[in-house]
Amino acid sequence: MDLKTESLNLHKDNGGKLEIKSKVKIENQHDLSLAYTPGVAYACKEIEKNQDDVYTYTSKSNMVAVITDGSAVLGLGNIGPYAAIPVMEGKSILMKELAGVDSIPICLKTQDVEEIIKTVKLLEPTLGAINLEDISAPRCVEIERRLIEEMDIPVFHDDQHGTSIIVGAAFINVSRLTKMDLKDMTVVMSGTGAAGSMIAKMLKRIGVGKIYAYDITGVIDKKRYNEYNFLIKELLDEGTYDTPSFHDNTLASILKGANGFVGVSAPNLVTKEMVKSMAKNPVVFAMANPVPEISYDDAKEAGAYIAGSGRSDYPNQINNVLAFPGLFKGALAVRARKINEEMKLAASKAIAYLIKDDELTPDYIVPGAFDKRVVEAVSKAVSEAAIKTGVARIKN
Amino acid sequence: MDLKTESLNLHKDNGGKLEIKSKVKIENQHDLSLAYTPGVAYACKEIEKNQDDVYTYTSKSNMVAVITDGSAVLGLGNIGPYAAIPVMEGKSILMKELAGVDSIPICLKTQDVEEIIKTVKLLEPTLGAINLEDISAPRCVEIERRLIEEMDIPVFHDDQHGTSIIVGAAFINVSRLTKMDLKDMTVVMSGTGAAGSMIAKMLKRIGVGKIYAYDITGVIDKKRYNEYNFLIKELLDEGTYDTPSFHDNTLASILKGANGFVGVSAPNLVTKEMVKSMAKNPVVFAMANPVPEISYDDAKEAGAYIAGSGRSDYPNQINNVLAFPGLFKGALAVRARKINEEMKLAASKAIAYLIKDDELTPDYIVPGAFDKRVVEAVSKAVSEAAIKTGVARIKN
Repeated sequence: MDLKTESLNLHKDNGGKLEIKSKVKIENQHDLSLAYTPGVAYACKEIEKNQDDVYTYTSKSNMVAVITDGSAVLGLGNIGPYAAIPVMEGKSILMKELAGVDSIPICLKTQDVEEIIKTVKLLEPTLGAINLEDISAPRCVEIERRLIEEMDIPVFHDDQHGTSIIVGAAFINVSRLTKMDLKDMTVVMSGTGAAGSMIAKMLKRIGVGKIYAYDITGVIDKKRYNEYNFLIKELLDEGTYDTPSFHDNTLASILKGANGFVGVSAPNLVTKEMVKSMAKNPVVFAMANPVPEISYDDAKEAGAYIAGSGRSDYPNQINNVLAFPGLFKGALAVRARKINEEMKLAASKAIAYLIKDDELTPDYIVPGAFDKRVVEAVSKAVSEAAIKTGVARIKN
Repeated sequence: MDLKTESLNLHKDNGGKLEIKSKVKIENQHDLSLAYTPGVAYACKEIEKNQDDVYTYTSKSNMVAVITDGSAVLGLGNIGPYAAIPVMEGKSILMKELAGVDSIPICLKTQDVEEIIKTVKLLEPTLGAINLEDISAPRCVEIERRLIEEMDIPVFHDDQHGTSIIVGAAFINVSRLTKMDLKDMTVVMSGTGAAGSMIAKMLKRIGVGKIYAYDITGVIDKKRYNEYNFLIKELLDEGTYDTPSFHDNTLASILKGANGFVGVSAPNLVTKEMVKSMAKNPVVFAMANPVPEISYDDAKEAGAYIAGSGRSDYPNQINNVLAFPGLFKGALAVRARKINEEMKLAASKAIAYLIKDDELTPDYIVPGAFDKRVVEAVSKAVSEAAIKTGVARIKN
């Protein structure tokens, strides 16, 4: 059976992918009197007296909403909130299957930024955390920032930060394997959307020396500052993006001599010749989906020392499934109010250091998507970072 | 262990009462490629082509949201959306345990009517139906009506209609047992809120002759029309409430000679003397919670032929758990666009006729809350009524 038929059957035969289950039995009047009236009133009254008890007596403590407006779903584009549901259900069940975190998809029938922000805030009482998903850039950045600012539970847009955490882990391990200092590296980013921007920020945060960026308009250059959206301006302002001293507005011109390439852009943008022009032992993470900027095989043939992509059928899959389950588990475990930069960085490091020095190879830079150790390691590191930075409600 | 300790422990030890489970396994890369990327894109594309396919490929087909603003929770009053969560979780797990319907609690952080209406509408894509719960009257009536009007999935406020369906069933069986024609009966309603109003409507719909109503302001009388809220006005206008030819504004004065009493009001409003003043073989359903208008024992001692209450420790429990699970199951089964009056009436009749003529006794007027036949009977009747009245998307 081909993938299409098999996947459609799986969705159809099960009537969707998730269900809500009771954790308690309701078989007789006594059960009913405990879980529902009249006994349930005691739990209500405890929460009325002390609102934090909502974490003790309800499912909020372990509940993540996966929220989208369907405006940028996978590579399918703006397919709307109905067609987005299968992806959100997929994300929800991954959360449960990989990390034991309960998760419910919510697909909003609006693409208005203010309406989305307002609605998400109104949904907060039953939710322990919010995973924003597949919202188009740069709206997604504004929505996430406003919600983080205005809410008191973690809000995390996986498309922005998920990949950045894994790419961060990958570059930590590139440095460990090659003994090259991150501050001596120049990395070229292709793609300045939500994912590209946050990858660039993460790379600077872990210590990468120079980052040149490229997008559909050409090479990002502070001379063109006024042409850019707020996100590119911000990255130029804060020094995340560096302006190359020489370029002719082509990707090829800035790849020359670079140590790394990171692509979250479009198929086949990078040629073998371009890889050959890079510095010695270059690193190429080409993550355009499903067709990367350059294939693993071509990158390696052209001399890449390390190559990776979003694909599961080649080494070094950069898959955000390594990050979000443990990240939410760790944030929920300490009832965090936010997921902050320190927590994301802690996740990157935890993922990186799961691979021991003597296990690292050019084809084993990040753990596999089904490495059972990842969730616990990320969760623990994220909980600790939350406590350390003062955003945890629980301090042990 | 007392009920309080046992109930608090149950909530605490389980960390709330519900969890989200995957219906498919995610153990390896192949599973991931079917349930998530890249295979999930096929389901998305089918829905993008034909929006009704959302019922085929997602959990929408079996998903009810239990939605509240926490403004009128049980007998606890306006305890807000956080303290309301244990009740909503209870409702959700009843839906699953009794009828196999998936259900998720949503507690909105607003009590503004327009914000509630707007938010609920924006949540529609993943939901097959909406159960409004514990929203104060008369706001709840406006909210429900607007949502029914403006949405294309069933919206049902259980506090309004749940009890009315069971009381309707009870009076159908009162008539079967006593051989008295409903049109010859006078029933006194105590309570003119959401539940009382809808019970009165249901009683008139099944054929009760006269309904006199009483509330905290006294006897409902068309002479005082201008003092009333829109709901009481509406029930007077449409002839649901009759104005007694004589009364002195007391409950006692309108109970004299009445055949039935239905209370959804306040404790101990009805005395034995008042029951004695009713017509021969009176029927007394005193459902104030947890202390009824008159106890079962007092009502019987005073000569009530049939007595019932909301309590599970006396005969004839009027429990809305008999109605909503089967009602939603039946509506979802045919992908109904609405839950209309015919569907509610069909539920009443289905519940009533589960008890055969020769099984009916004064202490067995409605089935028990755990009678396993109820859900199927209600579901089937509701599906049929939906098809018959043209609100079903599926017609077989």
